[in-house]
Amino acid sequence: MNKTDKLCVNTLRFLAVDAVEKAKSGHPGLPLGAAPIAYVVWDRFLKHSPRNPAWFNRDRFVLSAGHGSALLYGLIHMTGYDLPLEELIQFRQWGSNTPGHPESGLTPGIEVTTGPLGQGFAMGVGMAMAERYLSEHFNRTGFDVIDHFTYALVSDGDLMEGVSHETASIAGTLGLGKLIYLYDDNDISIEGHTDITFTEDVEQRFRAYGWHTEHVADANDLDAIETAVRKAQAETARPSMIIVRSHIGFGSPKQDDPSAHGEPLGPEATKATKQKLGWPLEPAFHIPDEALSHFRQAVDLGEKLEAEWDKLLKAYKDKHPGPAAELEVIADGGLPEGWQAHIPVFGPDEKPMATRAASGKVLNALAGSLFNLIGGSADLAPSNKTLLDGYSDFGTGGGRNIRFGVREFGMGAMMNGMAMHGGMIPYGGTFLVFSDYARPAIRLAALMGAHSIFVFTHDSIALGEDGPTHQPVEHVMSLRAIPGLTVFRPADANETAQCWKAAILRKKPAVFALTRQGLPVMDSGLCRIDEGVSRGAYVLKEAGQSSAGAPASAGAKPAVILLATGSEVNLALDAAGDLETKGIPTRVVSMPSWEIFDEQPEEYRLKVLPAGVPRLAIEAGITTGWERYTHDPKAVLGLNRFGASAPGPVAYKKLGFNIENVVKMATNLVRV
Amino acid sequence: MNKTDKLCVNTLRFLAVDAVEKAKSGHPGLPLGAAPIAYVVWDRFLKHSPRNPAWFNRDRFVLSAGHGSALLYGLIHMTGYDLPLEELIQFRQWGSNTPGHPESGLTPGIEVTTGPLGQGFAMGVGMAMAERYLSEHFNRTGFDVIDHFTYALVSDGDLMEGVSHETASIAGTLGLGKLIYLYDDNDISIEGHTDITFTEDVEQRFRAYGWHTEHVADANDLDAIETAVRKAQAETARPSMIIVRSHIGFGSPKQDDPSAHGEPLGPEATKATKQKLGWPLEPAFHIPDEALSHFRQAVDLGEKLEAEWDKLLKAYKDKHPGPAAELEVIADGGLPEGWQAHIPVFGPDEKPMATRAASGKVLNALAGSLFNLIGGSADLAPSNKTLLDGYSDFGTGGGRNIRFGVREFGMGAMMNGMAMHGGMIPYGGTFLVFSDYARPAIRLAALMGAHSIFVFTHDSIALGEDGPTHQPVEHVMSLRAIPGLTVFRPADANETAQCWKAAILRKKPAVFALTRQGLPVMDSGLCRIDEGVSRGAYVLKEAGQSSAGAPASAGAKPAVILLATGSEVNLALDAAGDLETKGIPTRVVSMPSWEIFDEQPEEYRLKVLPAGVPRLAIEAGITTGWERYTHDPKAVLGLNRFGASAPGPVAYKKLGFNIENVVKMATNLVRV
Repeated sequence: MNKTDKLCVNTLRFLAVDAVEKAKSGHPGLPLGAAPIAYVVWDRFLKHSPRNPAWFNRDRFVLSAGHGSALLYGLIHMTGYDLPLEELIQFRQWGSNTPGHPESGLTPGIEVTTGPLGQGFAMGVGMAMAERYLSEHFNRTGFDVIDHFTYALVSDGDLMEGVSHETASIAGTLGLGKLIYLYDDNDISIEGHTDITFTEDVEQRFRAYGWHTEHVADANDLDAIETAVRKAQAETARPSMIIVRSHIGFGSPKQDDPSAHGEPLGPEATKATKQKLGWPLEPAFHIPDEALSHFRQAVDLGEKLEAEWDKLLKAYKDKHPGPAAELEVIADGGLPEGWQAHIPVFGPDEKPMATRAASGKVLNALAGSLFNLIGGSADLAPSNKTLLDGYSDFGTGGGRNIRFGVREFGMGAMMNGMAMHGGMIPYGGTFLVFSDYARPAIRLAALMGAHSIFVFTHDSIALGEDGPTHQPVEHVMSLRAIPGLTVFRPADANETAQCWKAAILRKKPAVFALTRQGLPVMDSGLCRIDEGVSRGAYVLKEAGQSSAGAPASAGAKPAVILLATGSEVNLALDAAGDLETKGIPTRVVSMPSWEIFDEQPEEYRLKVLPAGVPRLAIEAGITTGWERYTHDPKAVLGLNRFGASAPGPVAYKKLGFNIENVVKMATNLVRV
Repeated sequence: MNKTDKLCVNTLRFLAVDAVEKAKSGHPGLPLGAAPIAYVVWDRFLKHSPRNPAWFNRDRFVLSAGHGSALLYGLIHMTGYDLPLEELIQFRQWGSNTPGHPESGLTPGIEVTTGPLGQGFAMGVGMAMAERYLSEHFNRTGFDVIDHFTYALVSDGDLMEGVSHETASIAGTLGLGKLIYLYDDNDISIEGHTDITFTEDVEQRFRAYGWHTEHVADANDLDAIETAVRKAQAETARPSMIIVRSHIGFGSPKQDDPSAHGEPLGPEATKATKQKLGWPLEPAFHIPDEALSHFRQAVDLGEKLEAEWDKLLKAYKDKHPGPAAELEVIADGGLPEGWQAHIPVFGPDEKPMATRAASGKVLNALAGSLFNLIGGSADLAPSNKTLLDGYSDFGTGGGRNIRFGVREFGMGAMMNGMAMHGGMIPYGGTFLVFSDYARPAIRLAALMGAHSIFVFTHDSIALGEDGPTHQPVEHVMSLRAIPGLTVFRPADANETAQCWKAAILRKKPAVFALTRQGLPVMDSGLCRIDEGVSRGAYVLKEAGQSSAGAPASAGAKPAVILLATGSEVNLALDAAGDLETKGIPTRVVSMPSWEIFDEQPEEYRLKVLPAGVPRLAIEAGITTGWERYTHDPKAVLGLNRFGASAPGPVAYKKLGFNIENVVKMATNLVRV
């Protein structure tokens, strides 16, 4: 290590140590050990533009071991992003831009939120997939307008997590040659030496996945790391894993000890570490001028890289104006033009159609105009109806049907990586019950505001014979529980189409719960489904009407409101017909999205659910939560047990979802 | 294949094909291809006793690819378990014992519920861990009273799932030599050939984990499979993976085609398959006498094996009466005696104690008497307080501190495997926010009724600096959403102790949500915490009392009830003091468990929450769900957003959990 490099690496180390010391909380071990690894990538390879963190063709860098955030904040500050030293001093404090784990959207230069282990690894794979797709879509001979690497620093914890397996395996299959991971191989996790729990041969494992592997014996050997990265860059057909032997808490009295991981060194050990590595004891947050000016070269270099790219883009625009215009729009976070005109309308004379089937039709109708809508399924494409007809498989040159394999969590995290890369609207499907497998990724999508769209089908016990292992019961409500997520459970083909419109327009993570079974297509003209869906819930059948769309008897005030979602809307309509016959004016409200309804002004909400009218909620899932709208725990027809294996209509009816039950419960509410 | 073997294998194949045909639903592909693999294990190796499926020392067999259930039902019927042919004919029908995917507890001979891919693989690892622990605990020289293998048939889908990585890696580290897996390597998954998504070298991968591997080139070569299993049995230091090349839908016109996987062959293809394999076309569900009598030898053999074991046990009892008595109790599903006396009581003069710390003390207090309470953490033992002092690590000869590694899902599934093995009470810890990672296993625990105890700590934004990636918000409510699961969120050290008592006594899956931060220890004498916890919720402070335990002003009726859990109970007590000062008689109800409270008679529930008194629910998580008890969406103090990185007390207060807020909201409710 030459003097400048050493100064730079130690600056990173001690900015982190001092930040953790000041906060009395944090993780000094990783920065001390892995600073040289990150430094080589950022100093010698990373193409980025600190003054424009959103530069579209930048290399992506992911700190999968998010607990090492202080290292990342050091790199971001030193290379000249808009993150003043004061923010590093305010590490982990209320209102600072330097939270305990890196959060995208909060701090410039942070690509994705990390901390939940394994997901940074997995999102990096998604980013490399986005780069692959966009480069295939946009690049022309002489115009590699999309051309960048995705780097990640990954830890023992990341590699223990199952999602690293799922996504490493598929990255190998897809041959993502621009993916370069550096493994901070420090042999220590929180409970002790990895010998006690993690003795696998990581190199052999990644070779089994089809990765190119490299070894660096000492994390402080910057040139060896550089050589390994160069070899990784030269390997274009396989992702690369560079295993770098490091020492947690390097240079401190706690080196190679688990105690270096997650707590401040303390004043004594901090002092000893500074002495050992030749660092001034005072002041804290010391930054040598030489280190600063070396790091800050990144600003000019970044501007130069951007200028070159702008020049390339200009020439590209002259020669390929169509794709160039597309690229401008999506690089800026916009949506391709004209797509809304392609949203299908289904006629009421259509045969009953499962909402999963409708979703498939919508996807295919939009695929042409939304060229950046790409996705697939976790090995359930024929069931989830996620296949885009006439397009080839992802990885086969411009293909956009992604074969995620039986890897729900990996799929979710890869979708998030694609979404956070920018320019992409990824979607992914599985059975709703297996949303549990993907849940950590769904939460992270919500936390990041990633535009990932989850297509979950087979959304209730009505799926039938596959039985309770495959029948979701608690899932719709559990997904509604996640802040920032929009859950759609459309009642028919037209609601499905309008929910897709909302899911795309909202640019936030969304979840679909779609039926396996056919549902009647409602009349969109009469029911104003499009307007209704855009408000989350709406009056589908007014009290006094014999059915949806029929003329209402003048002035009929509802005696009861049936409030339902998805397949239960049709049940509500049927039961309402019965109730009207019995002289009970019954309103039916369809509520495809709680979140959108809750966003509406109170006036609208009260118009749909007027005060004082009893409401019966109907949903083929747990009742918990529906009391928000019924104000009465007994006014919910749901299912508070696991399902049962039987043909769908049998299971549905036997488990309580039949007209008699609705009529009985509604009548009781009116009588009270 | 000799004639009898062939008859037997084909019987299994066509029982499955006919069952799927009759149900018009199911998976014929796996049974056709993998029947010979399962047959070799069941016919030549499996030590079981069909007339006593609960025989404690039986080998365990797991069909991880649960969609092949029809194959398993065939084996179970043919070998003489109490599963009549009529049940196979009623495959996938309402009320039958042959649901779409195997369900333990419903069908004799089914060890664990499978279908959600990867979890059978992972539970098998747990079963082998149980066998390892129990054999170390009970066996004495000349008395191998616990000595059995765990077999599983696993599929491409299982091996793609991340949880197979997590548990294979740790099985390698632990050297589980009695674990023998057979991989149905058919190269086909639902979306097509595995080339499109799963090209890893499975053998190399498992070698990297430290497994012994074997290859069988043709699934129909029974002797080759037998040889491989014998080698696997002979390998005592490493788990074994036998890769058996098979053909999905073997013998049918759909052989090697994805369409053979998950739908009936149809009458034509069924006929063609029977013709091709030399099977009579009629009747359906044909069972040759020779096959039946061959399979049914399992009954006598099983009785003989049991008799031998009983004899061994008798001699063991003479020589080692202590452990023999213990074994009798736990093999019968009982709890070791005397443990309840060890539940600690914490005095109110103790310093504030985090409930995670209290939980650790309870665990350690019980460890001596509950010798079968074993567990650990997903690399967070120092934080989760799951370590049993004075015990060595699992895998080191009688050790019982399990080092699960950073593998939350794997941990949950392994716990389930241990619990379903029988004789064990497994527990496992991680941060509550990472319960999402383990959620598929938690659901399966609930579905099976497995006695797995999840110790989730750092249960709210009050954990502080680690920030929103680590701060649970929606998790407690999302866990309450799972049917059959008991969620405990105790308010102090004594509630924690009593919740542990309930968690052990209930013999069902339970989840703890425990604080990182210290909480005052309440006075158990005055507050009758033990009785209260056993009822799920109870009056902690009566209206008119200035504080919990103080004398009440005679006849004070509550004007408002503060209903809280966990750390918010103390906030409620403080606020109630304020409200009393303001002349508002305030009752405080602590509700450590919704599920237990909801089980109480209405009379008790109305005594705690009398009708007509407004209630304010307080919990540092989402508000959704609390309307069940408040009947008013506005009467919940919660958090419907992600948290923030800051010191715990700062985040807690800033995000709304302070006395002023409680007092304001409660006062508003009283005024209405």
